[in-house]
Amino acid sequence: MAIITLTTDFGEKDYFVGAVKGAIYNELDQVRIVDISHSVSPFHISEAAYIIKNAYRSFPKGSIHIIGIDSEFTPENKHLAVLLDEHYFICANNGILSLLASEIKPEKIVEINIHDTTQTNFPVLDVFVRVACHIARGGTLDVIGRNINEIRYLKQFEPIVNTEEDQIIGHVLYIDNYGNVVTNINRKLFEQVGKGREFVISARMLTFKDIYESYSDWINFDVAKEERGEEGGKKLALFNSEGNIELAIYKSNPSTVGSAATLFGLEIRDTVTINFEK
Amino acid sequence: MAIITLTTDFGEKDYFVGAVKGAIYNELDQVRIVDISHSVSPFHISEAAYIIKNAYRSFPKGSIHIIGIDSEFTPENKHLAVLLDEHYFICANNGILSLLASEIKPEKIVEINIHDTTQTNFPVLDVFVRVACHIARGGTLDVIGRNINEIRYLKQFEPIVNTEEDQIIGHVLYIDNYGNVVTNINRKLFEQVGKGREFVISARMLTFKDIYESYSDWINFDVAKEERGEEGGKKLALFNSEGNIELAIYKSNPSTVGSAATLFGLEIRDTVTINFEK
Amino acid sequence: MAIITLTTDFGEKDYFVGAVKGAIYNELDQVRIVDISHSVSPFHISEAAYIIKNAYRSFPKGSIHIIGIDSEFTPENKHLAVLLDEHYFICANNGILSLLASEIKPEKIVEINIHDTTQTNFPVLDVFVRVACHIARGGTLDVIGRNINEIRYLKQFEPIVNTEEDQIIGHVLYIDNYGNVVTNINRKLFEQVGKGREFVISARMLTFKDIYESYSDWINFDVAKEERGEEGGKKLALFNSEGNIELAIYKSNPSTVGSAATLFGLEIRDTVTINFEK
Repeated sequence: MAIITLTTDFGEKDYFVGAVKGAIYNELDQVRIVDISHSVSPFHISEAAYIIKNAYRSFPKGSIHIIGIDSEFTPENKHLAVLLDEHYFICANNGILSLLASEIKPEKIVEINIHDTTQTNFPVLDVFVRVACHIARGGTLDVIGRNINEIRYLKQFEPIVNTEEDQIIGHVLYIDNYGNVVTNINRKLFEQVGKGREFVISARMLTFKDIYESYSDWINFDVAKEERGEEGGKKLALFNSEGNIELAIYKSNPSTVGSAATLFGLEIRDTVTINFEK
Repeated sequence: MAIITLTTDFGEKDYFVGAVKGAIYNELDQVRIVDISHSVSPFHISEAAYIIKNAYRSFPKGSIHIIGIDSEFTPENKHLAVLLDEHYFICANNGILSLLASEIKPEKIVEINIHDTTQTNFPVLDVFVRVACHIARGGTLDVIGRNINEIRYLKQFEPIVNTEEDQIIGHVLYIDNYGNVVTNINRKLFEQVGKGREFVISARMLTFKDIYESYSDWINFDVAKEERGEEGGKKLALFNSEGNIELAIYKSNPSTVGSAATLFGLEIRDTVTINFEK
Repeated sequence: MAIITLTTDFGEKDYFVGAVKGAIYNELDQVRIVDISHSVSPFHISEAAYIIKNAYRSFPKGSIHIIGIDSEFTPENKHLAVLLDEHYFICANNGILSLLASEIKPEKIVEINIHDTTQTNFPVLDVFVRVACHIARGGTLDVIGRNINEIRYLKQFEPIVNTEEDQIIGHVLYIDNYGNVVTNINRKLFEQVGKGREFVISARMLTFKDIYESYSDWINFDVAKEERGEEGGKKLALFNSEGNIELAIYKSNPSTVGSAATLFGLEIRDTVTINFEK
């Protein structure tokens, strides 16, 4: 059964998501609609890219992913349908595809040209749904758009390595539901530059000299629990499930004890620096 | 496959929604359950009406819509099953149906009479689910209720036109996820009264002399983007996707730059006035 | 069709839920995934237990319930698959099972032993999904784990009855979307101890001398609505749909007039006392 996923900034309350699902079921009886997220911050393209990038990989090949972020159709914001990594993506040409395609080259990109002459203020409902259902029925991209090669490029904050190769300057990429701080520095870059040397990670006033393999990797389970003292609230850096360096607080609850983001005072795009031993 | 949608004020956290879905699947194996919204403000009947009214139309004819708002069964709040616009609605007789049926007359209304003698404090689970599954199996409304003609009427804030026909006084109907302010003045009324005359829309300290066709309709795309200056934060009035006049801020993010609602200081039921040239 | 439900503290925004659903659909084409809640407070085991306990019963026998709370795999936090009340539960051995199994003895508990040697920081995705799909395909628990009898026990706040049997000291168990305060004192205990005597329920500065059968049970519907005066805001105690004593405000809206929890100043684990006539 065809799968259509939804990633939007529509929120949990409004009628938008319901209307989109209704329209899909109105076109297709046999289809599976899966919510990825509707709580992307409004117009936050890089946040949406981070979410869909980490979610789509789990889905079966051939899944169709609607991305409803900043999708108003204008001369400068055309609509795209894309085949990338054997998944279909339907989104506006607002730069999000450049973030999704930073590691994997798209197999095919078309600029959608099935728009009616009438203006729509709800392009996900009026355009993206039709395109998604077309693909779900086995239709080709060529029928609903024209091939293009150039897409809008969105500057991504890539980590920078200095010429001495003893420093990586990265950024905060995302802050998750637990308030943990995901950086854009991954294990591969860390190991390439670090070559096993000692290091210090700095973010604002904080420093970390270890990167753990998991949230509880720092705990010595050979010592009885009663003798180990309080563990909640421990600040640590670790490689998270995406392979990125994450700054976390062990078992943090943002609404009570505070989270890494609030306690460390970090926000998206803030700088995180790693200095290696010279 | 039968479709049952859910619109409630149960919120995203509690067990209520899960229990309702489980109960439906327990009665029916072949059914599609679709969440419209569970984040309606508690007991906010007009908000729920706005959401379901704009969502249901996208669904296939014959869909069954459970509305779980203010549904406690009392002598003054009986339960209804309604056929309207070829869709089924199951709700309490608390006035919401009068808002849904303001433009389209219901084909059939029954007062549900399958209640057990035992009191229930979870009528959506114990009554609405049974009715919805009955309809989904192809059962008729007559089996689960008795025909009625009178329903409870809820005063809706309708726009008022003065006798000189040069002023429309409307209200804020809804505030969406982007903080944009939807009024109850639609294009048809605006054009009927305005007859092409110049006008000023006033809401608190704000005035608008144009109504755009889309969020970016005011942008001159013939001028290069670099030369157009900052566009985010522009205040505008437009006809939204439902055809209503909406007061918006271009690409607003309520949690950062602020939204129309917060910046304009507008809340649901506040007055929005249009004065036309005499 | 097999049903897999999800109860987690992943929140509504992150990619976690989407990734988990994608992974399930990647393994199984014919399966129904149902969200119970993703808004459990981070690491709040008793809250998760309350939600899943009240939701699972509605589902068909044989349903598979993934509980993604505090599920990091450590020597002290192994993974369990459990058959209880003819439902399957997959969770960490963090005490949540002791709360679920407080009234019903599990038919079978296995400690999952299909973990790869590689560490995972996303055990719900990498372990729980595999186990759930195995069970959904009709696989037995013995294939994916070894039988155990001892599970980790989490101290639950049970109501205490004094030796004179004229007092019950209970606690706040949960606060729902309406801000109503659910206690851990149920009807059975109340009736056993009270034996029909008069009583006073005390919580902070508040007292209640009646327990109603429903939210509107205190209203005299024989008196015309117009003559009854304002009803919203009435403080009351009632037996809720789970049979527990709940302290509520009639038609409260937490974001406007305030809720029982905020107005009464009550939080989870706060004490609620019932004193019976001697």
